[in-house]
Amino acid sequence: MPKPIFISFEGPEGAGKTSVLEALISELKTKLGDDLVTTREPGGNPISEAIRAILQPEEDNGMDKRTEALLYTAARRQHLVENIKPALDQNKIVISDRYVDSSLAYQGGGRGLGIDNIWEINQFAIDGLLPDMTIYLDVPVEIGLARVNENRQGKIDRLDKESISFHQKVRETYLKLQSEFSDRIKIVDATQPLNKVIDDTRILINQILEDKS
Amino acid sequence: MPKPIFISFEGPEGAGKTSVLEALISELKTKLGDDLVTTREPGGNPISEAIRAILQPEEDNGMDKRTEALLYTAARRQHLVENIKPALDQNKIVISDRYVDSSLAYQGGGRGLGIDNIWEINQFAIDGLLPDMTIYLDVPVEIGLARVNENRQGKIDRLDKESISFHQKVRETYLKLQSEFSDRIKIVDATQPLNKVIDDTRILINQILEDKS
Repeated sequence: MPKPIFISFEGPEGAGKTSVLEALISELKTKLGDDLVTTREPGGNPISEAIRAILQPEEDNGMDKRTEALLYTAARRQHLVENIKPALDQNKIVISDRYVDSSLAYQGGGRGLGIDNIWEINQFAIDGLLPDMTIYLDVPVEIGLARVNENRQGKIDRLDKESISFHQKVRETYLKLQSEFSDRIKIVDATQPLNKVIDDTRILINQILEDKS
Repeated sequence: MPKPIFISFEGPEGAGKTSVLEALISELKTKLGDDLVTTREPGGNPISEAIRAILQPEEDNGMDKRTEALLYTAARRQHLVENIKPALDQNKIVISDRYVDSSLAYQGGGRGLGIDNIWEINQFAIDGLLPDMTIYLDVPVEIGLARVNENRQGKIDRLDKESISFHQKVRETYLKLQSEFSDRIKIVDATQPLNKVIDDTRILINQILEDKS
């Protein structure tokens, strides 16, 4: 029986997070079967999906940035209680596309609300439950946004519409968090070709699976 | 030109808050006209109304109590930014049916999440903006709930369905807050006949209108 393992994936726009996750989850599913549970924020259950709908409207709805931070945090809490915790309690390996570091980077850094303030409201939400490993796919803003513009077919959400300087602050915050919590947050160079990014990420995942087995 | 004044109304179920507010707002409207702005939580704008819909579903949706606390706080933030602050900036007199003390009493006390924890996430939301006066209509739980059962025609929300002990903790917390912040929070004995409760409340409102004029 594997120990419960909680892995989160983080990265700015255009880091290739979705492609990397798709490839690796497919591999891991073959190896781990039902022991693997994959999920993503914000969403995963009816309450968090309803919050997601408020957070990502078709048109700008004049949302205050503190309201936004509180809503992401509320969606995270319910996702944790309904999706992540029950799976960990059953000794599953849980991979979540985004978790608390997204709020620290996007709302704390990007929106300028301060990492400490966002950390405080998130501590209330996560109640100490941090991932065993966080994989951060790093890419410079210009490269990331160029990829987004190439791939995206019209669909765009509020965060995508932000300025270059917003995305730069997001990346700076991710890098700062990575250097501060380097035991937990592992960085992958996502400017590399996709198959190399997948290889590097696979090594990290195999490492924590071995460490915990 | 009157100075801006911010008054909040608080009270447990069955304190008669709605009846008292209706009577006094009607009187004040005659006296103050457009200088009076009345509003209520959670709601007041499309984002807060959407959050309200998640908070008050027809059937129990398994919402975690920390999710609930964060959602009330998010709705409060947007209500503050879209409804309360713009009115205060125009030197209006704002009366809000519920504000931060509701979260302290219901989530902090009633749900047992702790006043300090709820205060912290609410400080993030209100960023220091407390009412000039909070009027708390006090009524013992048994009397309040008996009134609710008498008046309510079927419609019941999640908070109403809570146990007696929940409502007792809510009242205890309101009383604690009132004694701790007695400069801001004024208590009215809501076991009295409605016209007496209205009289006592009117005196408090006239007092702050005079103090601030």
